Amino acid sequence: VSSANNTYIRVSLPAVCFVWQIAMVILFGVFIRYDEESDEKGWHEFKRSHNITSNIENDFYFRYPSFQDVHVMIFVGFGFLMTFLKRYSFGGVGFNFLIAAFGLQWALLMQGWFHSLDPVTGKITIGIESLINADFCCAGSLIAYGALLGKVSPVQLMIVTLFGVTLFAVEEYIILDLLHCRDAGGSMVIHTFGGYYGLAISWVLYRPNLNLSKRLNGSVYHSDLFAMIGALFLWMFWPSFNSAITNHGAGQHRTVINTYLSLAACVLTTFAISSMGQKKGKLDMVHIQNASLAAGVAMGTSAEFMITPYGSIIVGFCCGIISTFGYLYVTPFLEKRLKLQDTCGIHNLHAVPGMLGGFVGAIVAAAATEEVYGKEGLVETFGLSGKFENRSMSTQGAYQAAGTCVAIAFGLVGGVCVGFILRFPLWGDPADDFCFDDEAYWELPEDEETIPPVLEYNNHMINKHQDT
Amino acid sequence: VSSANNTYIRVSLPAVCFVWQIAMVILFGVFIRYDEESDEKGWHEFKRSHNITSNIENDFYFRYPSFQDVHVMIFVGFGFLMTFLKRYSFGGVGFNFLIAAFGLQWALLMQGWFHSLDPVTGKITIGIESLINADFCCAGSLIAYGALLGKVSPVQLMIVTLFGVTLFAVEEYIILDLLHCRDAGGSMVIHTFGGYYGLAISWVLYRPNLNLSKRLNGSVYHSDLFAMIGALFLWMFWPSFNSAITNHGAGQHRTVINTYLSLAACVLTTFAISSMGQKKGKLDMVHIQNASLAAGVAMGTSAEFMITPYGSIIVGFCCGIISTFGYLYVTPFLEKRLKLQDTCGIHNLHAVPGMLGGFVGAIVAAAATEEVYGKEGLVETFGLSGKFENRSMSTQGAYQAAGTCVAIAFGLVGGVCVGFILRFPLWGDPADDFCFDDEAYWELPEDEETIPPVLEYNNHMINKHQDT
Amino acid sequence: VSSANNTYIRVSLPAVCFVWQIAMVILFGVFIRYDEESDEKGWHEFKRSHNITSNIENDFYFRYPSFQDVHVMIFVGFGFLMTFLKRYSFGGVGFNFLIAAFGLQWALLMQGWFHSLDPVTGKITIGIESLINADFCCAGSLIAYGALLGKVSPVQLMIVTLFGVTLFAVEEYIILDLLHCRDAGGSMVIHTFGGYYGLAISWVLYRPNLNLSKRLNGSVYHSDLFAMIGALFLWMFWPSFNSAITNHGAGQHRTVINTYLSLAACVLTTFAISSMGQKKGKLDMVHIQNASLAAGVAMGTSAEFMITPYGSIIVGFCCGIISTFGYLYVTPFLEKRLKLQDTCGIHNLHAVPGMLGGFVGAIVAAAATEEVYGKEGLVETFGLSGKFENRSMSTQGAYQAAGTCVAIAFGLVGGVCVGFILRFPLWGDPADDFCFDDEAYWELPEDEETIPPVLEYNNHMINKHQDT
Repeated sequence: VSSANNTYIRVSLPAVCFVWQIAMVILFGVFIRYDEESDEKGWHEFKRSHNITSNIENDFYFRYPSFQDVHVMIFVGFGFLMTFLKRYSFGGVGFNFLIAAFGLQWALLMQGWFHSLDPVTGKITIGIESLINADFCCAGSLIAYGALLGKVSPVQLMIVTLFGVTLFAVEEYIILDLLHCRDAGGSMVIHTFGGYYGLAISWVLYRPNLNLSKRLNGSVYHSDLFAMIGALFLWMFWPSFNSAITNHGAGQHRTVINTYLSLAACVLTTFAISSMGQKKGKLDMVHIQNASLAAGVAMGTSAEFMITPYGSIIVGFCCGIISTFGYLYVTPFLEKRLKLQDTCGIHNLHAVPGMLGGFVGAIVAAAATEEVYGKEGLVETFGLSGKFENRSMSTQGAYQAAGTCVAIAFGLVGGVCVGFILRFPLWGDPADDFCFDDEAYWELPEDEETIPPVLEYNNHMINKHQDT
Repeated sequence: VSSANNTYIRVSLPAVCFVWQIAMVILFGVFIRYDEESDEKGWHEFKRSHNITSNIENDFYFRYPSFQDVHVMIFVGFGFLMTFLKRYSFGGVGFNFLIAAFGLQWALLMQGWFHSLDPVTGKITIGIESLINADFCCAGSLIAYGALLGKVSPVQLMIVTLFGVTLFAVEEYIILDLLHCRDAGGSMVIHTFGGYYGLAISWVLYRPNLNLSKRLNGSVYHSDLFAMIGALFLWMFWPSFNSAITNHGAGQHRTVINTYLSLAACVLTTFAISSMGQKKGKLDMVHIQNASLAAGVAMGTSAEFMITPYGSIIVGFCCGIISTFGYLYVTPFLEKRLKLQDTCGIHNLHAVPGMLGGFVGAIVAAAATEEVYGKEGLVETFGLSGKFENRSMSTQGAYQAAGTCVAIAFGLVGGVCVGFILRFPLWGDPADDFCFDDEAYWELPEDEETIPPVLEYNNHMINKHQDT
Repeated sequence: VSSANNTYIRVSLPAVCFVWQIAMVILFGVFIRYDEESDEKGWHEFKRSHNITSNIENDFYFRYPSFQDVHVMIFVGFGFLMTFLKRYSFGGVGFNFLIAAFGLQWALLMQGWFHSLDPVTGKITIGIESLINADFCCAGSLIAYGALLGKVSPVQLMIVTLFGVTLFAVEEYIILDLLHCRDAGGSMVIHTFGGYYGLAISWVLYRPNLNLSKRLNGSVYHSDLFAMIGALFLWMFWPSFNSAITNHGAGQHRTVINTYLSLAACVLTTFAISSMGQKKGKLDMVHIQNASLAAGVAMGTSAEFMITPYGSIIVGFCCGIISTFGYLYVTPFLEKRLKLQDTCGIHNLHAVPGMLGGFVGAIVAAAATEEVYGKEGLVETFGLSGKFENRSMSTQGAYQAAGTCVAIAFGLVGGVCVGFILRFPLWGDPADDFCFDDEAYWELPEDEETIPPVLEYNNHMINKHQDT
């Protein structure tokens, strides 16, 4: 089989895009409606029934700024973080764009069916919080893309996302609703799940001869700067990510503070270990771009809790160390020993910090007391009302830990299954010597090398003009 | 005439900048004052007269996040979208910066005279909403710049903007005030007008020998990534663009949801058609950067209405197809048959989707019923109070359609007139063989080629040091 | 001494990072707690005691959007503005990241001790406003970095930041608390201080043989575009910077309007002078990236006052001229005559505009009248309550002017002292022929030059495959 033919997607990609987008039209037509705060008639009735006099009490105004930050993280953050490869930047940011745009539509449906299906009307109503959750749900699949970067076709990525979003909605339902865990920033449901999902897929898709593409599996000077744009937008907006759907008031406020502090501490230990890890003490851009974000991942569950400012810093401190060590030693080990090729190192940025975040959350939850939170604060923060009214904090901690395990299990099992689906030889993935190469799926512009002669030619023409 | 001399702007550019900026100082001195929510004394009186007790009820807090998103779209979005040319990135982002900075000042005056001139004091009062509208008003001229990119001088662009903003304020007054159309996101007043304005100018400025600069009329790998930054910020923040000046409450909330969904659907069909349009199924960055935005343009009018979530998706679905087809077939056709050179393809991104958006808005308005909106919702959404109290919805739809035609007419006629002004041979525009070249107006840094020897030189020096 | 050995930081950088980060853990553990709006129990008590019924009255919602804009300015704005050098972009954005992440932690402590230490409990309580102030405090040191860019080691930068934040907290206490000046956007406390601090350090660290690195002290085409990202995000979000901690209501609203107008005017005069300053009238990217921001700096103090819209435009008008002149003539003069090497030209972007801004603020304050502000407006805007109740406006103006002098003095004296500390020969700074070179501290990816052969190789392989 020729490697060039392999990547022919002129039929499959449009087919998948059209079929799935038409399905979205139909399903949205059947199921999706505006919620009471975005429906024109509904909002007027809502205001009347809730004695609200002013339009500015619409929850839109208290979620939208966070939503936009999350939106930037999904499209520019994840997208540009994946532009670091020297010749796969189009694929990095472009396919990220494609699958997020599909994933968020599918997520609105899947999460709607599980969380906000009205049993009477059979409709799902959506508002700004649904959009945030849809973006979150995509993040799981985008994380998985990180492990697969450069080795799969866009058609395969659409499948990864279809199943990724589906699995996400199920595990989220189990973890948040059945186990009643708290996980506002998604250490468990987003990062742990997404990380192990991607790793499992990558493990099934192991390519023994990937070193044929080794020359392209690295960065150049400018591609590292593009990746730094993504990294910084992720880093800066992570406080918004973790706080976007927390309880309003002190909870949201505190989540921002905790995430902000943890991320700052993480940067220092990342720089320290990165320098220690190289013979001459030189820093590695891969660590700076990635490991400095690990604290945001690890605070996803506990940032909402009263983890204290110094507790947040300690978490960040440890994450920078663990994640950078991961990039230095664990990723190479996984590739050699476990036959696990993880292009972006999501093991170190999502899987492990997410899992740690889940367990940190369990510990902090178990340690929560009425003395610190106040009685109503404890109830509000952990949602201990209704049938969970009598749950003790140590029980809550145990459920949080169980939730982390559920996320790992869903990621691993789901990933293996999806990996096998992706091995059917009809999805247009590149041959081993054609990975990490935009040439496979993109019309590339001519090389930069050809400009200077043009300029010379122009100057020549100008001089000629001036002479006459 | 030598092509190099042509681009001499050392007198004309500073002259235009100084004259116009001094005019701004004088006109602002005469006309512009703070409004009641930004004036220190006025705000205290406003609070007292409106029984407001808290400073946080200032409308600033409910418009500012949207404003900042719009601001990013104008300067980073439009600016970086136009960096895609291999040697005109400075001009793309730099001149965008210049004309937007001028345009917004002139817009505050023009829009002020038409919309908020106090007949008693003869003053215009401005607040955060005025800043959003000024940014919007600039957008019309920046869209026109897209058609002219690389072929005009900054002095010409200042003239395009001076007249563009002026024409915008007039057509906006006719469409929004006289015809009483609704157009919160500006499908008509911004995109249709701006698109046809730029196309008409470009048509008048047709350059038969532009192929002399053909070598520079294309991208390189990294310039496409810079353009992707602009494209993504436009895409992500388009919900803010369309909702920035809608009615508070459900209207603003719904506008965001509709725009978000429509844009997501548009991405999938853009990828599909882009792949189908190339022999080997490869994707084209030009489509991804541009056509995926067409849905935002097309939802500018109707996103505020009860178009329903699936209605939004259908609009996005169609726009991705139409816009990508435009890039594949219509732009080349226009250039060959109509002698219309449209560098960025604004025909496909603004003119046609804007016009479509205007007519979609007309249809959705005509179909509006009290059953769906509620009585007060209908009045609020379409502003049917005062002398418009008795306007039926089908009449409103007809006026919306008429508004679209006004925008087209203003764009075409205004553009032709401005085009002829720009043909005076004194504005420093480049010769046909000097287009798309930053060399004309920018001091360019030395070429990248010269670095590696330096590094070698340094390494050489280091080795020498180490040897000693 | 070999220049290569000089930059060995494998011991010192990790040591500094670990020691300081561990110190942060301990000090945060001892001192830092959540404030009443972010503490779970505290917020419930606060709501009860202040008769607040709704969580959305938490001040978080009225500061957070501004905070995120400021955060973007600190990390992407300052960071990418410093990527303009052809081979120091990693150092520009990377070390900016490191020192801001450290600085903000230290700032929370330093500013906490001076401003919000509870005398009873001995604790500092933090909330969203503290985070904004911490970001502000870092800005002083990041400005100083601008003068030192490419010539110092990351270890030295950590020291610059440690002392910079410390000095900042003291001068801020003197200026804002003791002199009771108003300086919401920090013309004095941030820009004047930071500018002179950096200049003084750079003066002490004068390198007579810096021309050995001259080849790398300049930009390339793409590095200028990266810098433009930073410049634009600074420019766009400067209204948020100046208004982030003003009084809520009209004050915050007006600050945005004034800063927005001033920045727009500044762009036009920057373009004008840039064009006039070059023989052929060509524009210089250095001016566009930097001088167009000077208006934001200069409005830092007075944007909050009733400076009037046209007053703002006049300030912007003058700043564009002064700052661009500075880049054209003053920076070269300083280097030749005063032996002051200022890589980014912070003299023209921060020191002088900041100082001007301080004095403009003094004049506008002195000119404030009850007629314009209203009685309560005057008290609120200038904080003239308590022991400052009887301060006349001319006295306030005099104090504002005195505050500017304090900022200059702290910058100069502090900078000279820190400069001498940095001259100890143990911090790993590069030799004169190794400045402006990422090679010193970063593992650099292979050169871009090596890609095309790879592609050729791949194409070759593909053809071979197809032939078989």
